[in-house]
Amino acid sequence: MTSSVVTLSGGLDSTVCMAVARTASAAGGRLVALTFDYGQRHRVELEHAAAVAGHFGAEHLVVGLDASQWGGSALTDTAIDVPDACDAASSPTHIPVTYVPARNLIFLSVAMAVAEARDADDVYLGVNALDYSGYPDCRPEFIEAFAAAAALALKRGVEGRPVAIRTPLVQLAKADVVRLGLEVGAPLGLTWSCYRGGQQPCGTCDSCVLRARGFAQAGVDDPALS
Amino acid sequence: MTSSVVTLSGGLDSTVCMAVARTASAAGGRLVALTFDYGQRHRVELEHAAAVAGHFGAEHLVVGLDASQWGGSALTDTAIDVPDACDAASSPTHIPVTYVPARNLIFLSVAMAVAEARDADDVYLGVNALDYSGYPDCRPEFIEAFAAAAALALKRGVEGRPVAIRTPLVQLAKADVVRLGLEVGAPLGLTWSCYRGGQQPCGTCDSCVLRARGFAQAGVDDPALS
Repeated sequence: MTSSVVTLSGGLDSTVCMAVARTASAAGGRLVALTFDYGQRHRVELEHAAAVAGHFGAEHLVVGLDASQWGGSALTDTAIDVPDACDAASSPTHIPVTYVPARNLIFLSVAMAVAEARDADDVYLGVNALDYSGYPDCRPEFIEAFAAAAALALKRGVEGRPVAIRTPLVQLAKADVVRLGLEVGAPLGLTWSCYRGGQQPCGTCDSCVLRARGFAQAGVDDPALS
Repeated sequence: MTSSVVTLSGGLDSTVCMAVARTASAAGGRLVALTFDYGQRHRVELEHAAAVAGHFGAEHLVVGLDASQWGGSALTDTAIDVPDACDAASSPTHIPVTYVPARNLIFLSVAMAVAEARDADDVYLGVNALDYSGYPDCRPEFIEAFAAAAALALKRGVEGRPVAIRTPLVQLAKADVVRLGLEVGAPLGLTWSCYRGGQQPCGTCDSCVLRARGFAQAGVDDPALS
């Protein structure tokens, strides 16, 4: 029986990614959902991740790693405000303050450890390099370079069985992520995207705006708002 | 003023590495010592790391990340015994049970995050690929591949200021590590190497045996045993 590790924040992208992993391993493969309690401002996403993992009947590992010990991001340092999307325009040369130093580097590294301990062949990561916030660690060239480094670090790599990194959303526009999610039965109503982490999504941060645009372009109501 | 992040376990190698970093940044550079409380059996090393960081007047960050949640190593799973050195012979095709899945991948990733948040130019890692336990994530080819991946993930990489990874011990025999430590004033008497983490070093695990051989070949008494 094969296993897959899915990094699951409880957001739209990682939840669709989880549903894709479920579909890909339909023949009884085990899913391990991996969520990070990293000192994020929007810690409410942890409850959503638990709900999504529960929906899929997956083992759910919540790993604590307090990135607010060093900060350097609006998401892990409350002294830095989360800007509205209109003030956070991203480009290859502008990285917004919601960037978290080395986040996907850390998340993928821990995912590799879990994959090796659970003898899982695949790690899924819901990164998206099209409709995204301009974070360098969402780019396919980083994922490829990381996979090469991990193959050299891991016992599985030495044994000729490297862990594959699957990024099924990497080239999708946000509307296509929504469409794919509906197609593979992702529980979109359980997800949380807002960076601000209040009682309700703020509707104006970069993450809320990208999400709303995705649902609008797909011509679907966001079930998390109804 | 430049800063350096030094991964510090409190062992012989990382302590010598810390002393090298102190020497290299003698002109007032800041040192950040980074220690991981990762569910290791030999948790006593944390006290030694604190003593070493204090010796150098460095900021000391202790990051909790509980690798015993997934295990897969004699160092993080008490159900797997630490073997004696004679039973743990390592070779390129045999990796001992004290191998911790993705450990240096995770440690370096967090070090990169701290380096970026503190605007440090260098990360020091005391890996050694000569007299070592046969862990794949101590090899220079892994370190190089990791540096390339990290440069793509980090904002500093995009800005053309990648964080350098320094591994001053990587090609040294253990006796040379001891000699270098004495040369640069490393507080070798404060260090802890034993994997078993009892009241006293066991003297028979791989780490104790490598250390003893290093001191013997350097013709020096181990100050931690006196």
